[in-house]
Amino acid sequence: MNPVRLAIDVTGGDHGCSVVVKGVVDALRRSPGSFTAILCGDKTQVRDALAAQGVEPDVAGLSIEHCAQSVTTQDPPSTVWKRKCGSSVVRCIRLQAEGAADASISAGITGVLMASAVFILGLQDGVSRPALAAFIPTAGRRPVLLLDVGANLDCRAKHLLSFGVMGHDYARLYHGDDSIKVSLLNVGVEPQKGTRVILEAAQLLTQHCSGYQGYIEGSRILAGETDVVVCDGFVGNVLLKSFESFFGLTRAVLSGDKELLTRIESRMSILNSEMYGAVPLVGVNGIVFKAHGNASPGAISNAIGSAVTTLNQRAILAQQFGVSKGISRKYAV
Amino acid sequence: MNPVRLAIDVTGGDHGCSVVVKGVVDALRRSPGSFTAILCGDKTQVRDALAAQGVEPDVAGLSIEHCAQSVTTQDPPSTVWKRKCGSSVVRCIRLQAEGAADASISAGITGVLMASAVFILGLQDGVSRPALAAFIPTAGRRPVLLLDVGANLDCRAKHLLSFGVMGHDYARLYHGDDSIKVSLLNVGVEPQKGTRVILEAAQLLTQHCSGYQGYIEGSRILAGETDVVVCDGFVGNVLLKSFESFFGLTRAVLSGDKELLTRIESRMSILNSEMYGAVPLVGVNGIVFKAHGNASPGAISNAIGSAVTTLNQRAILAQQFGVSKGISRKYAV
Repeated sequence: MNPVRLAIDVTGGDHGCSVVVKGVVDALRRSPGSFTAILCGDKTQVRDALAAQGVEPDVAGLSIEHCAQSVTTQDPPSTVWKRKCGSSVVRCIRLQAEGAADASISAGITGVLMASAVFILGLQDGVSRPALAAFIPTAGRRPVLLLDVGANLDCRAKHLLSFGVMGHDYARLYHGDDSIKVSLLNVGVEPQKGTRVILEAAQLLTQHCSGYQGYIEGSRILAGETDVVVCDGFVGNVLLKSFESFFGLTRAVLSGDKELLTRIESRMSILNSEMYGAVPLVGVNGIVFKAHGNASPGAISNAIGSAVTTLNQRAILAQQFGVSKGISRKYAV
Repeated sequence: MNPVRLAIDVTGGDHGCSVVVKGVVDALRRSPGSFTAILCGDKTQVRDALAAQGVEPDVAGLSIEHCAQSVTTQDPPSTVWKRKCGSSVVRCIRLQAEGAADASISAGITGVLMASAVFILGLQDGVSRPALAAFIPTAGRRPVLLLDVGANLDCRAKHLLSFGVMGHDYARLYHGDDSIKVSLLNVGVEPQKGTRVILEAAQLLTQHCSGYQGYIEGSRILAGETDVVVCDGFVGNVLLKSFESFFGLTRAVLSGDKELLTRIESRMSILNSEMYGAVPLVGVNGIVFKAHGNASPGAISNAIGSAVTTLNQRAILAQQFGVSKGISRKYAV
């Protein structure tokens, strides 16, 4: 299999270029030949960051795309893709659109990344709102995909349907398995429970979403009984961050007992917040990962691993079944 | 201090009378003299359950209130208090209203318990919606109170304000401390983040809620930085249940290593789902605890401990400061 080609925004995160570059270099050392990376950012800073990792700027697998413009929280997200073409985040997405990269990874501002991806790559058929989807480790044999985790805070029933269909599609791609189970997050499993939006979404999902299984409660997400959990972006964001916090809590509580902490961490990957270091943006025509603003090198490295897995699975699926083109117009939102 | 007098609905839970009775007997053995209990349920069943615990029905501290009627999910919650006066849940609340009990504990149907409490005990001044509030263990020096955890799924800004004020009041009572910090759950801490409801609630809380500190993210709930976390009942329910599930996940993952599991459980009370066995209903004129439908004896026993703590603190506060009468009309919702 050819190495996948990644465009990586090295200047978007809170910690600057060096942390992201270290993550890329670590991933390349761990899985040489599995990917190549175009590092988008200030040329001098990227060279310095590479040098700090003992890597030559022209090492095989890495190249630098100089980006002089910077994006701030003051920039209206929906205009950055047009007005700041020279920023690292826009260059990443453009490289994808131009066919020079297979996927992008950015730790930049969520709204800017999302709007740039939507305007440059376009939405999949029938999708009106893309979503951020996070894989969360479970007690079962594979992780569960939770979406939306923050792109859409207020959702109507038709948006939840859309998340279900996109989640099914993405999980199918990621796991290379057609039997994907989709569940709707609710406060109980009895049919009459939930808000008006939830009750309406349940009806739509039953009618239009492959693999829909019904409601799931917060207590069952980590049990590994389902593959996709659908919720609005407010709930998903709060949940994802609370899952992450168990790692910090465990560390705080067990800090006096390093041996116990080490044993626990080696057994429970759920406690490792770096597992959630980056999440895919689903619903756009292309594979885009949003890393945490404060992503560590380990999180960036895991994000690269996820992108490589996703792209390789897509290649396999394309041969086996043909790649899904997203939601059909019939279920358009 | 006189023992507090509890009315306990022994027939409301999923597991029947014997589990609840065992919880009561365990609590009495652990803290003899701290409370007395009126066990509301079918007389014969309660006697049998007591006998199974080796307890005489006329033992000091316990009495039985025979209740012949049963409540089902088919009963409209808002009418049970009038139409099923002989049910165990309604008898508990009535005993409080009549002055024979200081607090009630029930593992029955949430809506029925809530409506019965609202209609029989009445709402605190200025409250239009009571809330379920759960104490969650943290890495800090005391637990955090999360509300609402399921009584109100759709909330407007004024309801979130109400939860903040009620939460502040309850935490002040529980901890016996006037310096209570209140936070609003959100997807970020930047002022512009959140839904329209959240932005509006933040303004109201800033103006009208003592101790309001601003936004908190899902990742910081367990850090122990705040005393009260305000959210709508959908988010709170999902969060509470997901916190509980870490216990199950830990057990599942570490089941092969019993020694490690025992060491972890003894260090991290957060992993003990029985800590969340019962939650107070705040906003009504009286102390009412809702236990899980599937509460274990340990959870019932912990609920009794919480009720005793709350009542004793209230007695102390009443001497020191005068008891709060709830939200003033000024902030009425």
